[in-house]
Amino acid sequence: MTTPPAHDVHAAWLPPEAFRAIGSRRVFVSGSGTVRDEVAQACAQYGGSVVSGEGPVDLVLAVSTAEPLPAVAQAVQGTAGEDGFVFARHDGVTVVLADDPAGLLYGLFHVVRLGESAFGAARPAELHRPATRRRMVDHWDNVDVHPVMGQVERGYSGGSIFWRDGGLRDDLTRVRAYGRLLAASGINAISVNNVNVHATEAHLLTDRLGDVAAIADELRPYGIRVHLSVNFASPIALGGLPSADPLDEGVREWWARATERVYETIPDFGGYVVKADSEGQPGPFAYERTHADGANMLADALAPFGGVVHWRAFVYNHRQDWRDRSTDRARAAHDHFAPLDGRFRDNAILQVKYGPMDFQTREPVSPVIAAMPGTSLAVELQVTQEYTGQQRHVCYLPPQWSEILAFRPWGPGGRAVADVATGGGGLVAVSNVGDDPYWTGHPLAQANLYAFGRLAWDPRLDPAAILDEWIDLTFVPVTNVDPGPLRRTLHAMMDGSWRTYERYTAPLGVGFMVRPGHHYGPDVDGYEYTPWGTYHFADRDGVGVDRTRASGTGFTGQYPQPWSEVYESPEQCPDELLLFFHHVPYEHVLHDGTTVIQHIYDTHFAGVEEVAEARLSWEKLAGAVDPALHDRVRELLDEQLRCAEEWRDQVNTYFFRKSGVPDARGRRIH
Amino acid sequence: MTTPPAHDVHAAWLPPEAFRAIGSRRVFVSGSGTVRDEVAQACAQYGGSVVSGEGPVDLVLAVSTAEPLPAVAQAVQGTAGEDGFVFARHDGVTVVLADDPAGLLYGLFHVVRLGESAFGAARPAELHRPATRRRMVDHWDNVDVHPVMGQVERGYSGGSIFWRDGGLRDDLTRVRAYGRLLAASGINAISVNNVNVHATEAHLLTDRLGDVAAIADELRPYGIRVHLSVNFASPIALGGLPSADPLDEGVREWWARATERVYETIPDFGGYVVKADSEGQPGPFAYERTHADGANMLADALAPFGGVVHWRAFVYNHRQDWRDRSTDRARAAHDHFAPLDGRFRDNAILQVKYGPMDFQTREPVSPVIAAMPGTSLAVELQVTQEYTGQQRHVCYLPPQWSEILAFRPWGPGGRAVADVATGGGGLVAVSNVGDDPYWTGHPLAQANLYAFGRLAWDPRLDPAAILDEWIDLTFVPVTNVDPGPLRRTLHAMMDGSWRTYERYTAPLGVGFMVRPGHHYGPDVDGYEYTPWGTYHFADRDGVGVDRTRASGTGFTGQYPQPWSEVYESPEQCPDELLLFFHHVPYEHVLHDGTTVIQHIYDTHFAGVEEVAEARLSWEKLAGAVDPALHDRVRELLDEQLRCAEEWRDQVNTYFFRKSGVPDARGRRIH
Repeated sequence: MTTPPAHDVHAAWLPPEAFRAIGSRRVFVSGSGTVRDEVAQACAQYGGSVVSGEGPVDLVLAVSTAEPLPAVAQAVQGTAGEDGFVFARHDGVTVVLADDPAGLLYGLFHVVRLGESAFGAARPAELHRPATRRRMVDHWDNVDVHPVMGQVERGYSGGSIFWRDGGLRDDLTRVRAYGRLLAASGINAISVNNVNVHATEAHLLTDRLGDVAAIADELRPYGIRVHLSVNFASPIALGGLPSADPLDEGVREWWARATERVYETIPDFGGYVVKADSEGQPGPFAYERTHADGANMLADALAPFGGVVHWRAFVYNHRQDWRDRSTDRARAAHDHFAPLDGRFRDNAILQVKYGPMDFQTREPVSPVIAAMPGTSLAVELQVTQEYTGQQRHVCYLPPQWSEILAFRPWGPGGRAVADVATGGGGLVAVSNVGDDPYWTGHPLAQANLYAFGRLAWDPRLDPAAILDEWIDLTFVPVTNVDPGPLRRTLHAMMDGSWRTYERYTAPLGVGFMVRPGHHYGPDVDGYEYTPWGTYHFADRDGVGVDRTRASGTGFTGQYPQPWSEVYESPEQCPDELLLFFHHVPYEHVLHDGTTVIQHIYDTHFAGVEEVAEARLSWEKLAGAVDPALHDRVRELLDEQLRCAEEWRDQVNTYFFRKSGVPDARGRRIH
Repeated sequence: MTTPPAHDVHAAWLPPEAFRAIGSRRVFVSGSGTVRDEVAQACAQYGGSVVSGEGPVDLVLAVSTAEPLPAVAQAVQGTAGEDGFVFARHDGVTVVLADDPAGLLYGLFHVVRLGESAFGAARPAELHRPATRRRMVDHWDNVDVHPVMGQVERGYSGGSIFWRDGGLRDDLTRVRAYGRLLAASGINAISVNNVNVHATEAHLLTDRLGDVAAIADELRPYGIRVHLSVNFASPIALGGLPSADPLDEGVREWWARATERVYETIPDFGGYVVKADSEGQPGPFAYERTHADGANMLADALAPFGGVVHWRAFVYNHRQDWRDRSTDRARAAHDHFAPLDGRFRDNAILQVKYGPMDFQTREPVSPVIAAMPGTSLAVELQVTQEYTGQQRHVCYLPPQWSEILAFRPWGPGGRAVADVATGGGGLVAVSNVGDDPYWTGHPLAQANLYAFGRLAWDPRLDPAAILDEWIDLTFVPVTNVDPGPLRRTLHAMMDGSWRTYERYTAPLGVGFMVRPGHHYGPDVDGYEYTPWGTYHFADRDGVGVDRTRASGTGFTGQYPQPWSEVYESPEQCPDELLLFFHHVPYEHVLHDGTTVIQHIYDTHFAGVEEVAEARLSWEKLAGAVDPALHDRVRELLDEQLRCAEEWRDQVNTYFFRKSGVPDARGRRIH
């Protein structure tokens, strides 16, 4: 394992110092492999040693079936299970026992997170198991530079760490380092190319499969399986068949053979990811087949080898006529997929975006998540900040994700979204990583990736606690500086940053208002008269989308009770989603007593003030963090403030010009 | 001379049939050269002959100093002058006498235009002279394909006829054919690369000068001189100098040497075109020098060889803050250039866009045109339809140009814009030609290029008469079809098409409202909150830009009387420019008695109806024109209608949502 030199690539949440507690001790490690290598490297740096099981020992890291185990380990009870581990502190020895190498790896990183506190008071055996078997990140990386989207679609961190100028990178050092970071957060699956599978990328399935195998080789030591986005029309494009009909025997046979060859090359291959009949991608509709037919065809090809297909539910009409008020993009996924419940194979995972639209700062939870009890659903989140500041703005997303995961579609007594996910396909996210030295463009955006892994492992973790973990790992104090101010400042800047971002952008759940195409910065009417189905319908009297059954598109009817009723009623609907579900007058009074128009003004002024405060707080940390990192964040905060002011002024001016209502507090609106 | 095969490239206004009248006669031609080649080719096709001056003759085409001249020619009096010719019909012989080969060429094409009528009744000698010495088209063609703008910036007719994939085309047949078409319209100067001079294109001045020479060789037979757009920073980029300061001796010396080398290679080289300190291009401001300093430096380098520099006046702040209401882009050119009047060299031509903004469908005439009596001004028009339908919409522009040329900035008794231009640098236009088989994408857009040449020759020509010429040349009847219906239909479709386009797009001179970037189709607020200085300031009460002295930006003060007063007054201001100069309530009553808001609705419904009528008219011409051309125009009319409906609905909906005023006639507004 090679860690890139510190001056070249930032160590993120695995700086050498994070291994000091382990590296300064006597460690027993069973077997060879990644965990032994990690420990040996840490001990070489901090004076500890890898010891046999017979002498004194401070830390045991062992697969439970290993022989011989130190005596102390035999006192620790518990069956770890796949990917799990048992952790205990017993007789002055810290013990991690796992049933498999992956579990041992997660145990090692657990000790890393605990640091010195792993070697303190005795602890009874704790069983750590991931909530789901598969914890996945998707990359929207292109092999060929796309003329519009570039090397990484919706990527804000430079080029791809896998691909460059039409081919696999020569040096895959960073791929391995990335695998190590992902493993330390709990991730164990990755798809390596864009779901919009262009011509070159389609060949990764066949003649360019060697590139995928090379990536798999780098990630395997960290327990990460590689998945591949494939083009539904591959039998035509690659196989020369006249059709890609999922019920055609020749087509099915083609996929079976192609999949067989994939597993001959990559025996632990994870499976396929498919975006079909979506935004121009081919799909089963061309053959008058259902999406279940499409997904099942691939599931059947993968089943003999234990693979899965992730089939995305992001299907809607992206050539809608804005004049057509009867079509509602929010309805589309439910309309298409709910009727198919129960018709997907066990190894077909329906990958559903968290909201009915497209990764907005605020959306209701997608009704699809509550509508398909007979289908294995994965909930898709977006770590890459497409609509949340594009890694130029601080926007710590786990508070949003936790709200989504804690949402109970069937009401207070029912299951939560987290339960649906853990009982099904788990969590999947679009990664925010590129070849930027800080991995994620904005150094603080690393926290989103780390936290996603942790939530995929355990969706009930507290976002603030995860942030603590990330801060302590990433900013291990190297001098005798009090870590308190840094930690407090980062919490102040990050804990509420998603809500801050919400305040200065599109109000009350109405969404979008971004510049078309690149989606950065404000343009209130940017998507208002386009085919994309993303409208706010603001006029001189009011704003919002009527999605009620009573007078609107009927989208509220896609939810079970009580939400169907709650969302239907402008009085009961939560304020933060009001304009998603209702078209209301500007003078409509929210639950806190302010009007909609005054809320727009107030939140936009407040959001900018919060960014200005964050910027000042960060200034005061000069000297407490690495100067290069401090500079990078400072420059980005300047841009965030500029952009937040632009949002404030455009949104406020737009609504003042339309409504004619002055700000009650007399602040400047241009 | 090779004319491309008819099935490959459309003959435009020079089909073989246009030469029938000449080609079936006995023609005396003095000297060798292009005119003789043209006549010989026509006679080979239509049975006529090139004859000596001694026998019977029907047509004499001669340079007046040629020996021996047929006797009949000696009876024709008149001094043609540079580029001019004398035309007469005498004793049954048609006579064209010129003083130079170029004049003879224009005389030949005059006879082509007249066709059989050139050989009818006797005509006394008519003297034909161009209104200006230089009649120029600019190409915004890139050598390297630009990642955003493509091979031709604002090009809607395919690739460049000069350049392809980073180099000169191997086959320059079309360049020569283009030269022939230009000469037949009266053009005699061309610049061959984009005024945004990117890295590769900068080298055309030095190590890639051979490419320019090759183009000049193709165009020289048709009397067309080549000009080159150069980068102001060339001394740095190409010469390795530390500066491009126009008053630096080393810099001046560099330009002198570079220009000397150009003329060594291309002795009849025309000169330079420069866009400086504009939209990111370098310029003299970096050295705290004036634009006169910059232009004069290049003029001095060109003067020894008789060359000219075209220096564009398109200088404004394109990074304006939309919140800053004190800055007015319309003022910029006058603010920058008017104080420099009298400080430009004689061979420095200030090239001024016709309006103060940027080639909108409707703008007032630029006040710069009236502000610089001591400077040689060229008026720049845009044949390429950037803001007028991008050669997907029928938009015959000469009525607009004629209005501009006939405008009298000093009032009814004063000189017209045409007088300023013909007394100075003449007319320049951005060409609409590319490698499309019809040259201009939309076959009917050929008429704009033809008409521009004719107006550059004589700005007082009537647009409808020019259209007649173009129709008769382009659609020479090959069968016994009555040409009347075709001619009537084309007039009905084209004469009013600019006003039709105006009706369904941005109202009352307010401009823009186009999709940012590509500028096609509507987006009312697309540029409203951007740095480009192009705003309409619509709110719930009214719309328009206050450019008065009384309460606005003071732009009206840049005009001489009476226009300064006329534009200042919302009552006197012409309706079609009302929103360019004034912000008025929606209920403001226009001179025709309708309100602004009702005018918006009415014109947008009417504009679409006019397009629908044009489409129906064209349908009826099936069979009367070449089927491929008919199909192309039909498809484009479908798109025009779709786009016009989109304009109508977006503009009407936008203003209905803002104003709340219903259409008085109850038509459907979405």
